[in-house]
Amino acid sequence: VPTFKVTLAYDGTGLVGWQRQAHGTSIQGLLEEALTTLDGRAVSVVGAGRTDAGVHALGQVASATLVRAMDPRTLMAALNAHLPSSVRVLAADEAPVDFHPRFHARTKTYTYRIWNAEALSPFERLYAWHLPAPILHVEAMATAAEAIVGGHDFAAFQAAGSESSSTTRSMHVSSVSRAGALVTYEVTGDGFLRHMVRNLVGSLVEVGRGKRSPAWLTEVLESRDRSRAGPTAPAGGLFLTRVDYDAPGSRP
Amino acid sequence: VPTFKVTLAYDGTGLVGWQRQAHGTSIQGLLEEALTTLDGRAVSVVGAGRTDAGVHALGQVASATLVRAMDPRTLMAALNAHLPSSVRVLAADEAPVDFHPRFHARTKTYTYRIWNAEALSPFERLYAWHLPAPILHVEAMATAAEAIVGGHDFAAFQAAGSESSSTTRSMHVSSVSRAGALVTYEVTGDGFLRHMVRNLVGSLVEVGRGKRSPAWLTEVLESRDRSRAGPTAPAGGLFLTRVDYDAPGSRP
Repeated sequence: VPTFKVTLAYDGTGLVGWQRQAHGTSIQGLLEEALTTLDGRAVSVVGAGRTDAGVHALGQVASATLVRAMDPRTLMAALNAHLPSSVRVLAADEAPVDFHPRFHARTKTYTYRIWNAEALSPFERLYAWHLPAPILHVEAMATAAEAIVGGHDFAAFQAAGSESSSTTRSMHVSSVSRAGALVTYEVTGDGFLRHMVRNLVGSLVEVGRGKRSPAWLTEVLESRDRSRAGPTAPAGGLFLTRVDYDAPGSRP
Repeated sequence: VPTFKVTLAYDGTGLVGWQRQAHGTSIQGLLEEALTTLDGRAVSVVGAGRTDAGVHALGQVASATLVRAMDPRTLMAALNAHLPSSVRVLAADEAPVDFHPRFHARTKTYTYRIWNAEALSPFERLYAWHLPAPILHVEAMATAAEAIVGGHDFAAFQAAGSESSSTTRSMHVSSVSRAGALVTYEVTGDGFLRHMVRNLVGSLVEVGRGKRSPAWLTEVLESRDRSRAGPTAPAGGLFLTRVDYDAPGSRP
């Protein structure tokens, strides 16, 4: 009864997100269908990050336990033969039977992309938030972003109506940079609340537009009040870039 | 009667290419329709490079002469309001009345993208040639590519059946590099024959696969014989990256 760790990339455009929903196509659903076909019985899949509708992934991680023994490379090829080209298995490895992609993840990294120029590149239509003007003040955004590094209660940046038992998370990297028209926010942390990255980006953009100071973002964070943060940035600019785990055997 | 130089990016997927055809949507046609609406009479557009069906552009250049005087920024905004989001005007400038995007171009640069890994990234489906295996020998490809720099008769790499008065062109840059799974060919020259870049890439891939030596590409070039070159690489991997002109006033 082998357990597999599967690394995935997907274009989330038109999908309802990672998790199965009553209606629409989910990545979890596509993967479970493909695995069920391969294994000849119902297979469940667990993902490291429950990406929302329209959010993309460059390195999502999922686990599945099969009845049938299978070489990981064969599994990868068979899954890619079943999945649509918008979802690709990039790697498959055997994993410990108790492997849990979310609970065992040490860090996750998300990237948010903003296209900050008058004309939106045709190649960024589905992969960036288009903010034509003004030119964002990237240094101010970077200063504001840097302030969330460390352990904090991120309740102010949680989706309205969501209930997490704890809203404290620890961020290791939170940086903003520009390359031409492309402004990129990268954030690595031990976990993320629902809509947290998109709410952080919505607030960082308020700072970049000069409507708010970098210190304001820290005030919002400390207030733990969702109503004080900026708007939620659109889903299409967000990528789950990677999920990192401790080296095998280093886990207690 | 102002003449404009317009710089364009487009996603060529599903389009019949730059030039108007009897059937299908062309970039030239889309641009002429938009300009005709703006100027209130039939406007013709000339492009620097006649990209084929499915080929993309990051920096195509076109010219158009209007009856109506218009601020270049207004023209850019008005065109982008008329064009589909797959075609974007990145810049518009007034140009000398005799400006010809193709005849006056000093150099054009094309980029060809190859995805050389087992699984094709969902984000590269329409923008790269997927070559899963073997791992391409990029050093050999780079050596072969380097050999076409300079002035040569490129008849061996011209599309079968095309008739150019001269098949001699001068290449300034011809380089191959790898970044992860992405192998990129970049070529800058004073002009290109029909299918020339895609035929060069098809031949470079034969070298990268170890089927041919780098010296073979030079032999094919010197033979001037189309039947000796490799296959034509698919359109979706090709981008017209930029068109360069002499600084205004430096032209004799």
